[in-house]
Formats: sequence, C-alpha cells, structure tokens
Amino acid sequence: MLERMNDGAHDEQHIYRVLYAALDLAADYQGVDVDVLIAAALLHDIGRDAQFKDPKLDHAAVGAEAAYAFLIASGWDKSRALHARECIRSHRYRNDAEPESIEAKILFDSDKLDVTGTIGIARTLAYKGIVAEPLYSLDEDGNVLSGGRETEPSFFQEYNWKLKNVYGKFYTEKAEKIAETRRKASVDFYESMLAEVETTHRIGMRRLSETLD
Amino acid sequence: MLERMNDGAHDEQHIYRVLYAALDLAADYQGVDVDVLIAAALLHDIGRDAQFKDPKLDHAAVGAEAAYAFLIASGWDKSRALHARECIRSHRYRNDAEPESIEAKILFDSDKLDVTGTIGIARTLAYKGIVAEPLYSLDEDGNVLSGGRETEPSFFQEYNWKLKNVYGKFYTEKAEKIAETRRKASVDFYESMLAEVETTHRIGMRRLSETLD
Repeated sequence: MLERMNDGAHDEQHIYRVLYAALDLAADYQGVDVDVLIAAALLHDIGRDAQFKDPKLDHAAVGAEAAYAFLIASGWDKSRALHARECIRSHRYRNDAEPESIEAKILFDSDKLDVTGTIGIARTLAYKGIVAEPLYSLDEDGNVLSGGRETEPSFFQEYNWKLKNVYGKFYTEKAEKIAETRRKASVDFYESMLAEVETTHRIGMRRLSETLD
Repeated sequence: MLERMNDGAHDEQHIYRVLYAALDLAADYQGVDVDVLIAAALLHDIGRDAQFKDPKLDHAAVGAEAAYAFLIASGWDKSRALHARECIRSHRYRNDAEPESIEAKILFDSDKLDVTGTIGIARTLAYKGIVAEPLYSLDEDGNVLSGGRETEPSFFQEYNWKLKNVYGKFYTEKAEKIAETRRKASVDFYESMLAEVETTHRIGMRRLSETLD
C-alpha cells in the first residue's frame, strides 16, 4: 500500500487521517461494516501511483480493481470484496461513480475532509511543489491573478476551482459540520496570501518603472 | 539564472518578489547602488541548484562566486562585481557572513520577507513536497508532534525552528514593519492546522481502539 503512495499530499499520514475520520463518522450510524470501511480507507489511494505515471488513468477505478484482487487473494469473500471495491471506486470527487452504500459515503466524506481547512491548503501546496506548478499566475502585465478565472494550474487556481467548493457537498452531517469549522482558516489563508503577493508585485512594478525612467 | 532555480519555493516568482521588495526597501535610502542591488537580487539564488544536488554546499557562497564571474564576463568593473558578490554571499539566514553594505542589508531583508506570513508558509509547504518531507511527525503512540521540540524534518518542525523566528531580525525598518503585518496570518495558519490534525488523530485513535476492543 505505502509504496504506491509516497507524495506529501497522499502519504501515510493522509491514509491515517482518512481512516480516523471514517471511524469517527461511522460512529453516528448503526450497522456499518467496519471491516469493509477500514479496508477501503487503507486501500483507497493505491491507484495514485498509476494515475501519477499516466494522468489519463482514474486512480479510483484502478485502485478499486487492485484492492478487489488483493482482498480476494487475502481470503475475503466475494461480496465483501466487491463492497470495498465499490467504496474505492466512488471515493473520487471528479469521476461520476456516486457513492451508494453508507460505507462508500463515509469514505468519500473522510477523503474530502482532508481537502478542507488548513490541511487541504497544506496538502495542495505540497502537491504543487511535487508537480512543479507555481503558487499563482501573472497576467501579461505582471499583475497577480487571483485564480478564479484562469485555467493554468497554480495553487490559487486550485483553491478557487476545487478547495473552496468542497464545502456543502458531504453525505454525512458530521463531516459537513467538521468541514464548516475548518472553512474560515482556509479562506483567511488564501485572502492573506493574495493580498501579500498582489501588494508586493504592484508596489514592486511601480518602483521598477520609476527606477528605469 | 532561471534554469538553476526551478522548484516552487525558489522559482522565478520568488526572484520577482525579492527584486520588487528590494526596490521598495531601497526607496527609503539615499545613494543606494540600484544596479548592484538589481543584479544581486536577480542572481542571489543561482547557487540553489548546486546546494540541492550537494547539501554540504552553501548556495550563498557558490552563488556569489558564480554571479561575480558572470558580472565580470558581462563587462562590469571589478569593484561593483565584488559589491554584488558581497550582497549574495551574506543573504543567507544560516551562514555567518553578515551583510555590511546597505545593498547587502536590503537584499537580506527582501529575501527574508519571502519567509514571512502566508507566502513563507506556502513556499515552505511546496518545498516539503519537493523534498518528500512530511507535514508533521508522530510520536511512538501516534500523537501529532507540534514541531517545537523534535528535530526530524517536517513542515511543523520548520515552522517552529525557522518561520516563526524570522520576525524582529530585519536590518531595515520597512521590512520589519511589513513582516509584522504578515505575522498573524502565519501564526493562525499553523495553529489551525495543528488543531485540525491533532484532533483528527486523537479522536481517530480512540475510535480505532474502541473498534478493535
């Protein structure tokens, strides 16, 4: 499991947080198959490495098949291995497999909680470092772009297109509440950073043109 | 210049910010040699690539020599090329070359401003991704360590050992003031993130032990 997930955004600690959040969300429901949930949480990102090497692949689909094969080989019966496969297949934000079972909904929410708040910011920034994408983009005149309109990948762009939109899209009430408590710190960070770099570029460009005059 | 600096923490945008901040700080002083300052700002991190490949090297010392050779080859006279070399040599926080000239002090402050506030947090997180260091460390029982005591590299460790200590150590009054306006957003981010992950691990470990009982 671990050797297929070794970036700072999808590392061992992400798996721990997703597992822990899943167990916490599960405590609100009767009759959750905890073994399926734990297996799905531990294995949910084993398709990451394949997707990283070939971005056309969907790590949720690849990981679901790999996890199913692993669980069958480990002696699980077919119906529960299929259940874990369903959870993993539908955990991804961007594909169209919707979570159906309560275990799949809990896994989805647990994984999405790790995109909220400051932990979501921190993971996104670490990932931008790994894939060598910039913190923000500049327009043709050198002004800082806020990320809401452009499509060139950057931290500001991902904040606007993904991070800030994850709230209000949870299946469980507890995940929704936890996300809401984390929201302000995330917004504050983005707004402070935008103000810092926007000011630095704006004043600096003015000083540069005064110097060159 | 740019091909030697291609990570998300020391990229083209860092060079722009340092140049812009340097020109802004310089506006408070009479008689600053702006050409030396601009050259030193643009070239200050050209030793980064060498230090990345061999961490025993000091990028400030390596970069100072490379910049000097470049400026001489570009037709600069020896005394001003030596001046730019001095600025670059003394810009680093962790070595013992102290900035002496006003240009060297301005470059030092401009580079250190990029470690303050949310931009300092963002660059550090991107760099942790690049060098595959974790966001935080855990103790033997699985509790989140806050970063203030341990020496294993992580974002929390670097925040406590470097980022939070950069305030109050500037040479120029304006840099000191700018840093102070950025300080709270940086502290807030760290404290929110520590609370988020500490809570997730603490509650999750309790749920896990209840589940395994």
